Amino acid sequence: MEKMKLKMLYSGMKSEIDIIEKELETALNSSSHFLNEASLHLLKAGGKRIRPVFVLLAAKFGQYDIQQIKNVAVPLELIHMASLVHDDVIDNAELRRGRETVKAQYNNRVAMYAGDFIFAKALEYMTQIKKQQAHQVLSNTMVEICVGEIIQIEDKQVLKQNLRDYFRRIKRKTAVLISSSCELGAIASGASPEVVRHMRRFGYYVGMSFQIIDDILDFTATDKQLGKPAGSDLMQGNVTLPALYALEDDQIRPMIEKVIEGPITEGERQQLLKAIRKSDAIQKANHISDLYLQKALKEVDKLPNHPVNKSLVDIANFMGKRKF
Amino acid sequence: MEKMKLKMLYSGMKSEIDIIEKELETALNSSSHFLNEASLHLLKAGGKRIRPVFVLLAAKFGQYDIQQIKNVAVPLELIHMASLVHDDVIDNAELRRGRETVKAQYNNRVAMYAGDFIFAKALEYMTQIKKQQAHQVLSNTMVEICVGEIIQIEDKQVLKQNLRDYFRRIKRKTAVLISSSCELGAIASGASPEVVRHMRRFGYYVGMSFQIIDDILDFTATDKQLGKPAGSDLMQGNVTLPALYALEDDQIRPMIEKVIEGPITEGERQQLLKAIRKSDAIQKANHISDLYLQKALKEVDKLPNHPVNKSLVDIANFMGKRKF
Repeated sequence: MEKMKLKMLYSGMKSEIDIIEKELETALNSSSHFLNEASLHLLKAGGKRIRPVFVLLAAKFGQYDIQQIKNVAVPLELIHMASLVHDDVIDNAELRRGRETVKAQYNNRVAMYAGDFIFAKALEYMTQIKKQQAHQVLSNTMVEICVGEIIQIEDKQVLKQNLRDYFRRIKRKTAVLISSSCELGAIASGASPEVVRHMRRFGYYVGMSFQIIDDILDFTATDKQLGKPAGSDLMQGNVTLPALYALEDDQIRPMIEKVIEGPITEGERQQLLKAIRKSDAIQKANHISDLYLQKALKEVDKLPNHPVNKSLVDIANFMGKRKF
Repeated sequence: MEKMKLKMLYSGMKSEIDIIEKELETALNSSSHFLNEASLHLLKAGGKRIRPVFVLLAAKFGQYDIQQIKNVAVPLELIHMASLVHDDVIDNAELRRGRETVKAQYNNRVAMYAGDFIFAKALEYMTQIKKQQAHQVLSNTMVEICVGEIIQIEDKQVLKQNLRDYFRRIKRKTAVLISSSCELGAIASGASPEVVRHMRRFGYYVGMSFQIIDDILDFTATDKQLGKPAGSDLMQGNVTLPALYALEDDQIRPMIEKVIEGPITEGERQQLLKAIRKSDAIQKANHISDLYLQKALKEVDKLPNHPVNKSLVDIANFMGKRKF
């Protein structure tokens, strides 16, 4: 059902999304057999192409020329794909008890360079963009994402952190790229500076709301829905918003400390999940996500009246309220 | 002594190199403690800054304005640094018999994202360049290097390859970045299209000659000079030019096949090195390197008469004839 909602949102932009899809295919084509295989796999895996969709929606406020707009939509999606590929390096399934198979090492190297290749292709694609401002936004986005990845590692297993640390982290991890997608769609279509500003903020708030929901679902959804054990974030040392709230609970705190310290049993995991789900941590985190969602919707109100406003509201609600 | 030669070559450009060094420091500064530590380490390790030097030399043929030139020199060196960081990921010393320590995994992740960060910083720096042509050269360089890294993995442990495969590989691995450095120095200073073309070719030939020498030294230099066991390339499955020639020798071929198949004893390594050093493989590879060096020098002859021509000849000779 979730997928259907998204499909409806996309229905008015099918031909443009197809153009972007084709461009992505072309961009990832190379003289290396390995690369083509890896790229094909990535393309087929699909993904929601949510960043290009934000670009397209934002571009409705200016001169809606897909030939111009694709020049920012394609690199944005490529940057997203590259970061996914790099995120998969090293903590892949083939790594067990600290022992990595030769095949995994080999795959890791290929994956690392494949990610580099996709980054470089994003850059190559960007050379077609004439607007200096767009270049600055894009390159700054890439820097922020990379710094974010490192900060996420720095903050791992650190329980002495506050909400600000968390927000700073998810901003860089998720919100910046969505924010830049909205901003760049507006810039590429030559929308007014006000629209550019409101779209950037809209994307930022939607991104924050979206990531908080994602972090909540890691505790509340089933293993099947998640495709991995619930509570994985914490087990990997990532202290997210629900965990930060749960730490305030004297009953739950020792459980979290135990997860952070080392491997826990399946029984302990179930106990932790039960405790967090029952606590007010989830509710508090949901409340924050909702505050961001409301802020996003307020930005839409500040935009010029346009049929696209309804789509922006729909997509924000979809991302800020999804159930898994 | 080698270092002294290089210092003399650099002596006329000290103030410009210092400016570039300062810019590199600024570029790598970030809000992450980990990143700053890693960057400082990279900067202190130095490196010959040979790419910026090529940029500076090429720029002498146009309007020599360091404020313009640094905008290409800095990203080129950053790209080089990023690729070094990524090359170190995974096959680091902490990986033993397929077992990777947790610390190494952790370091690998940091190194991967640190490399990404440096790439992104190169890109951010590039936004200051006004010339479209420079953007195209730089982005294409990055794509070529990444494809080259993957092709090097594809070609690993493959004995059924010809000289063309090898040349294609080292072109992307080494020659492209030196070639682009020369080209971009000329472009950034507004030199004529002829100078741009000759400088690009000069850099390409120097790069090819340089890499072949590097691959020869892996067989002929001592473990101490190399800082790793001689013959490492082959032991890691990289079939370089001397190895390709040595494969033609019926006595040596089985030895090489054995190295490629799996670990060899220290005695076998010594035997292989001795055989290759005694064969004509080294001589043949030296001859090819020299042909590239001669081609590089011919390009200098086609350049306008300028005091910098002598420096170009000196640096080409230095790189194409170094003894370790």
